[in-house]
Amino acid sequence: MRIGILTGGGDCPGLNAVIRGIVKSAPENVEIIGLMHGWKGLVVGESMKLTDNDVEGIHILGGTILGTSRTNPFKSEDMRIKMEENIKKLGLDVIIGIGGDDTLTVAARLSSMGYKAIGVPKTIDNDVANTDYTFGYQTAVNVGADAIDRLHSTAKSHGRIIIVELMGREAGWVTLEAGMAAGAHLILIPEYPMTIDEILTYVKKRMDRFGYMIIAVAEGFKPTELENVVGDESKIDAFGHIKLGGIAHYMANIISERTGYDTRSVVLGHLLRGGTPTAFDRILGTRYGVHAMELVMKGDFGRMVALKGNDIISIPLEYGIATKKLVPFEYYKLSQIFFD
Amino acid sequence: MRIGILTGGGDCPGLNAVIRGIVKSAPENVEIIGLMHGWKGLVVGESMKLTDNDVEGIHILGGTILGTSRTNPFKSEDMRIKMEENIKKLGLDVIIGIGGDDTLTVAARLSSMGYKAIGVPKTIDNDVANTDYTFGYQTAVNVGADAIDRLHSTAKSHGRIIIVELMGREAGWVTLEAGMAAGAHLILIPEYPMTIDEILTYVKKRMDRFGYMIIAVAEGFKPTELENVVGDESKIDAFGHIKLGGIAHYMANIISERTGYDTRSVVLGHLLRGGTPTAFDRILGTRYGVHAMELVMKGDFGRMVALKGNDIISIPLEYGIATKKLVPFEYYKLSQIFFD
Amino acid sequence: MRIGILTGGGDCPGLNAVIRGIVKSAPENVEIIGLMHGWKGLVVGESMKLTDNDVEGIHILGGTILGTSRTNPFKSEDMRIKMEENIKKLGLDVIIGIGGDDTLTVAARLSSMGYKAIGVPKTIDNDVANTDYTFGYQTAVNVGADAIDRLHSTAKSHGRIIIVELMGREAGWVTLEAGMAAGAHLILIPEYPMTIDEILTYVKKRMDRFGYMIIAVAEGFKPTELENVVGDESKIDAFGHIKLGGIAHYMANIISERTGYDTRSVVLGHLLRGGTPTAFDRILGTRYGVHAMELVMKGDFGRMVALKGNDIISIPLEYGIATKKLVPFEYYKLSQIFFD
Amino acid sequence: MRIGILTGGGDCPGLNAVIRGIVKSAPENVEIIGLMHGWKGLVVGESMKLTDNDVEGIHILGGTILGTSRTNPFKSEDMRIKMEENIKKLGLDVIIGIGGDDTLTVAARLSSMGYKAIGVPKTIDNDVANTDYTFGYQTAVNVGADAIDRLHSTAKSHGRIIIVELMGREAGWVTLEAGMAAGAHLILIPEYPMTIDEILTYVKKRMDRFGYMIIAVAEGFKPTELENVVGDESKIDAFGHIKLGGIAHYMANIISERTGYDTRSVVLGHLLRGGTPTAFDRILGTRYGVHAMELVMKGDFGRMVALKGNDIISIPLEYGIATKKLVPFEYYKLSQIFFD
Repeated sequence: MRIGILTGGGDCPGLNAVIRGIVKSAPENVEIIGLMHGWKGLVVGESMKLTDNDVEGIHILGGTILGTSRTNPFKSEDMRIKMEENIKKLGLDVIIGIGGDDTLTVAARLSSMGYKAIGVPKTIDNDVANTDYTFGYQTAVNVGADAIDRLHSTAKSHGRIIIVELMGREAGWVTLEAGMAAGAHLILIPEYPMTIDEILTYVKKRMDRFGYMIIAVAEGFKPTELENVVGDESKIDAFGHIKLGGIAHYMANIISERTGYDTRSVVLGHLLRGGTPTAFDRILGTRYGVHAMELVMKGDFGRMVALKGNDIISIPLEYGIATKKLVPFEYYKLSQIFFD
Repeated sequence: MRIGILTGGGDCPGLNAVIRGIVKSAPENVEIIGLMHGWKGLVVGESMKLTDNDVEGIHILGGTILGTSRTNPFKSEDMRIKMEENIKKLGLDVIIGIGGDDTLTVAARLSSMGYKAIGVPKTIDNDVANTDYTFGYQTAVNVGADAIDRLHSTAKSHGRIIIVELMGREAGWVTLEAGMAAGAHLILIPEYPMTIDEILTYVKKRMDRFGYMIIAVAEGFKPTELENVVGDESKIDAFGHIKLGGIAHYMANIISERTGYDTRSVVLGHLLRGGTPTAFDRILGTRYGVHAMELVMKGDFGRMVALKGNDIISIPLEYGIATKKLVPFEYYKLSQIFFD
Repeated sequence: MRIGILTGGGDCPGLNAVIRGIVKSAPENVEIIGLMHGWKGLVVGESMKLTDNDVEGIHILGGTILGTSRTNPFKSEDMRIKMEENIKKLGLDVIIGIGGDDTLTVAARLSSMGYKAIGVPKTIDNDVANTDYTFGYQTAVNVGADAIDRLHSTAKSHGRIIIVELMGREAGWVTLEAGMAAGAHLILIPEYPMTIDEILTYVKKRMDRFGYMIIAVAEGFKPTELENVVGDESKIDAFGHIKLGGIAHYMANIISERTGYDTRSVVLGHLLRGGTPTAFDRILGTRYGVHAMELVMKGDFGRMVALKGNDIISIPLEYGIATKKLVPFEYYKLSQIFFD
Repeated sequence: MRIGILTGGGDCPGLNAVIRGIVKSAPENVEIIGLMHGWKGLVVGESMKLTDNDVEGIHILGGTILGTSRTNPFKSEDMRIKMEENIKKLGLDVIIGIGGDDTLTVAARLSSMGYKAIGVPKTIDNDVANTDYTFGYQTAVNVGADAIDRLHSTAKSHGRIIIVELMGREAGWVTLEAGMAAGAHLILIPEYPMTIDEILTYVKKRMDRFGYMIIAVAEGFKPTELENVVGDESKIDAFGHIKLGGIAHYMANIISERTGYDTRSVVLGHLLRGGTPTAFDRILGTRYGVHAMELVMKGDFGRMVALKGNDIISIPLEYGIATKKLVPFEYYKLSQIFFD
C-alpha cells in the first residue's frame, strides 16, 4: 500500500511529530510518500519517499520537513486534473492531509469523489470544532505568555501601558490564554468587542491603582466603534480586518491620546508559530499521526482524528470543518475576574 | 463568610495559581484565610489573611506562598482536637484543601464529620482518577523533555547510553510522556516491568544501528527479576522501592557490565517540581481555584474539582482518592512504536 | 554615611543585580537610599530606604525596583535647585547613578560641581566606550537569537524571506551578535550601510540556493539610498531615523516588490529588554554594584565602573560618555563570512 | 591544502560552532577533513570531507558532529605510528585540534615533531589559562543557574535545605558563577575548603533567619576534614575525589544528622554539558573557528586561539596547557558577600 501525506496552510509546531508518527507506525508493507508543499506537491508531482531514517528526531523541530503552501487544487479545472493524474502516477492508495480548514476541505472533497482520504486537523488558533485541542496551540500560548511575562518588567519600571498583539483573526483563544497565563490586565478578543470608552475605564482603574498595565489584544479584535468600518486600504485588509500590527498600534495611539499615558505596542506575529513544540504538542502530534495510520489500517476513511479528553478519536471529515470553535462567553467571563 | 485554604504534600507548579484564583474570585463579603504549611497550620493555628494584593502576580511563581507539609491531623487524637479548636477559633465556615491523596483524604474525613470542605487535586504524577489532568504535570513533563533533549547531544557525541531517571513511584506518566516527547529510545515505567534480558535486547538493537541511546526510567520501575526483592536497606526504601537515584545507577551498572557499553546516569529528581509553571498549568490552576470558589458559593460541599476535556467539573471528594490512574496498556503500547 | 542610588533611562536586565550588589556589600554603618524613577526622584524628593530584605532575590528579576525615567535635572534651573535641596534634605553623602549616557552625564556634572558621584554604565546596546560589556546586553542577544531561531522553521516551511528588526539606533551590536548566533543570512546595521541593489544580490543568491532566508536588521539601519532622506513625518522620527518597525516593513515591501518573493517582517522591539537576566548579566550587574561600593569606601569618586577582560576596573566618568563604541569593521567583516 | 580537524574530550556546547567557523571561512582551495571521534579518527583512519552544506545551521546544536573520544595516540607506539601513517595517507597539511588539556597536549607534541598544528581550547570548566573564557562555559552556567532558580521554590515551600552539585573537579568556576547568579546561600568549591563546622555555622544562620537554603557544591569540593581521606573505594575515585553525586549526598546526610533539618540533594551532572549553546558561546566558538583558519592562512602554527577582552588572539600551544586557571581568592571573597 502507498500512502501520500502532505502538510498545508500556515506552519505549526507539531507538524513534524505527526509525520513521524505516521511513518514510524506504518507496517512494513506500507510505503509513505511525502508530497511537497501541501496540495501543490500533488499538482506538480513533487514528492519524496519517507523512511524511518528520514523522520529520526524530527518531532522536536518546528515547521514541516515537507514544506507547505496555500495551493487549492480545486481552484482550477486544470489543477484538479493534474492532481488526479499524479495520484494515479504515484500509485497512491490513500491520502492523509494535515492542515487547517482549507486543507481538510480539499480532503473532504477528494473523499466525496471516492478517494480514500484521512484528515489531521492543524490550527495554531485552536478553533477547529469537535476536538479539545490541536497541536501547536499550547506552544503558541507558551511563547506568548513568555513574551508577556517579559514585558511586565519594562511596563512596571517605566510606568507604561504596553499593548501586545497576538494571533487570532476570528477566534481569540491564543490571546485569551496567553493573556490569562501571563497576567495581562485586560484581554481583547474578536468574539467580545468593547467600546473605546469601556476600554478606557479599565485603563484608568488599573493605572490609578498600580501605575502600569499590560493589554493583550488579538489581531482580529475591533473596538465596537470600528465594527462596521470597511475599506481604509492602508489599515484594513481584504477580509475587513485591521492589518497585522494595526490594532496594537491603533490602541496604543488612541489610549495615549485620550489618557496621556505613555504607551507602547508589541506585535508577536510569527514568533508564536515557530520553534520547538512543547511536550504536549509533540505528543499530541505523535498520537494524531499514529491514529491516522490506525484509521488507514482499519479502512476507516473520510475521517478526521480528534482529541476528546485524554483519548484520540475520529469524526467525519465534514464535522471538523463545519464550524469554528470560538471562545464561549462563560470562559471569557472567567478571564474578566483578573482584569485589574 | 470565612474560608480557610491550605496546600499540602509535595510542592507543584500551579499551586499559587489556585490560591490566586480563589482569592480573586471571592465575592467582597468573603474573607480568605491562608493556613500555613498544610494541615499543620490548622493544628498549630498559623494563618494569614489573603487579599488581592497578596496574590498579585503569584500564579507565575513555582512552589506555594502558603508553605506545605505532610502533617496528617488525624494521626493523633491530640492533633485532631487542636485542629477542630482552631477551625472554631479562626471562625472558618469552609475549608479548601489543595493537595494529593493524603490532603484530600483529610478533607473527605472532615466532610464526613459535617464540616464544609472542598478539595482541589494536586499531583505532579498525574495519577488522580477522574480528572484528565492535574496542574504541575505538564510543567514537569516539559522540564523532563527539555532535560532529555539536552542529553541527546552528549550521548551521541560520545557514543554512550544515558539512563535518565524521572519521577513516578507507582504511575509512570511523567516518565512516559517526557520520554515520548523527547524521543527516548526506551521507556521503563512501574506499570510494565521488563526483564533485564528484554531491556538488553532493546539496547543491543539500538546500539548496533545508531551507536547511542537514551533510556528514560521512572524511579518506581523495577526489572522483573527484582520485583520481589525486599529488604536491602541501602537500596530499598520502606515502601519496597529502589531509592531515589537507585534504579538509574542500577541500570547503568548492569547494562555496562553485561554489554560493555559506556553508560551514564542522570537523576532529574526535584528539578521536575520547581520553577515557573507552563501556561497550561497556570490556567488549569486558575480555573480550579475559580471553580472551587463557585462550589462554595453554590453550597456544593464535599466535592473535588476536576478537568474533563475542556470543562472544569466537580465530583465527590471520595472519587478522586478512590483509585490511582495508571498508564493504560494501550497508551504504553503506543510509546513502544518509538522504542528504537 | 548615606548613599543615594538611582536607575535612569531605558530599563535593562541586570539593574536589580546592581542594586542588590550595592546594598549587600554596604558596611553596616552605611545607609542606602533608593531614589525613585531616576533623577526625577531626587527632583521631587521621592525615596525609600533599602535594606538587605528589600533586595533579597531581586537580581533574578528584570526591570528595576526603583523605577526609571528620562528626567534630566539640569534641564531647568528650577529642577536643578530642587535636586540640590533634596540632596541636602536627604543627607546624601554620595550618589550612585546607574544608567546610560544621559544619566552618567548628569552624574559627571554633579561630580564637577563638587558632589561625590559614582557611575554604573547601563546600555542594552553595548555601545559604552571603555568597557568590554555592559549588563543586559547578553540577555538581549540571547532573547534575539532565540526569536530568530524560532523564525527559521517558518521561513523554511513556507519558502519565505523573514526580515526581523532588532534594537540599535547607532550601534548594531545586538543585531549583529543575535544575527550571527542564530545564523541570519544577512545582517544590516547602521555602521555599514548597503544599497538596495547590494541587498538584493544577497537575497537572490541565498534564495536560489536555499529557497528561504532570514535577514536581521537594526532599527537604525538605512539603505544607502535613504541616507539623506529626512522629513517624511510618517516614517522618519525627530532623529532622522526610520520609525520603530519602519525599516523591517520597508525592507519587506521593497524586497517583495523587486523580487516577487514572499516576505514577512517581525519587530522584536521591547521583547529584548524585558525578563530575567542571563547568568552573565546577573553576575556582571552584581560585580558592578559591589565595585561601586568599593569605590565609595576608598573615596574614589567621579568614576565609572567598567569591565576589562575578567576584571572590574574603574575609569573617569567622562571617559565612559565620551564616545560611542561602534561595531568595528573587522568584526562586521567576520559576520559577512556567514552571509549566505 | 588539506586541513584535518577533530574534537576530543568531553563534549561541550559550541564545538559545532567552531567546526562551522573553520569550514565556512576556509578559502575555496582549502579542503577540510573531519576526523571522527577525536584522535581516534586519526589512529583508525575514519574521516569525512566537510563542505559548507555539512555545517549549515550546526552551530545551534549541542555536542559535536564529529564525535569525540579520550583516545591518546601517544599512549602506545603502535597508535602513534598509525596516526602518522594516516596523516600521510589523508594528505593532511595541517591539523586543528579542538579540545581540552589532553587534546591540546597531543597537538603540542605533534607540533614539536614538526607537524603544522593549531589548537582551539575547549573546557566547560573555564579553567584554561591565558584565555578569558572558553565556549560552553556560559551555557553550563546558565543551565546551572536555571536549575537552581527552579529549586528555590521547592526549598522555600517545604522549609528545606537543598544541596545541588555542579561540575568542577579542581576549578570551581561553574559552581561559583551558577551559584552566584541564582542566589545560592552558600557555595562550596575545591579551591577553598571549609570545615563541616564552618558549613554548619552558615546553615544555622541562614535557617534561623529564612527557614530554607540552597547550597551549591562543586563535585571536587571536600570538607577540610576529608582532605586526606583516600581509598574508600565506594566513595572515592582513582583521583582521590568523592564520586559523582558523592559530595552532594554526603553533605545532605551530614547536615541532616547534625542539625535535624530536612535536606535533599540534586546532582546536575551531564545536564550542564548538553543542549543548544547560548548566543555568547555560539559566537565565541564561531570566532575561534574563524581565527584558527586565519592562523593557518598566515602560516602561524603551534598556536592556540584565545579570548582577551573582546579580542581573539593566539598564544603558543604550550601556554594554554601549562597551568589551570583556578578561582582567585578575591573573586571567591566577592561571592561570600551573598552567603546568607
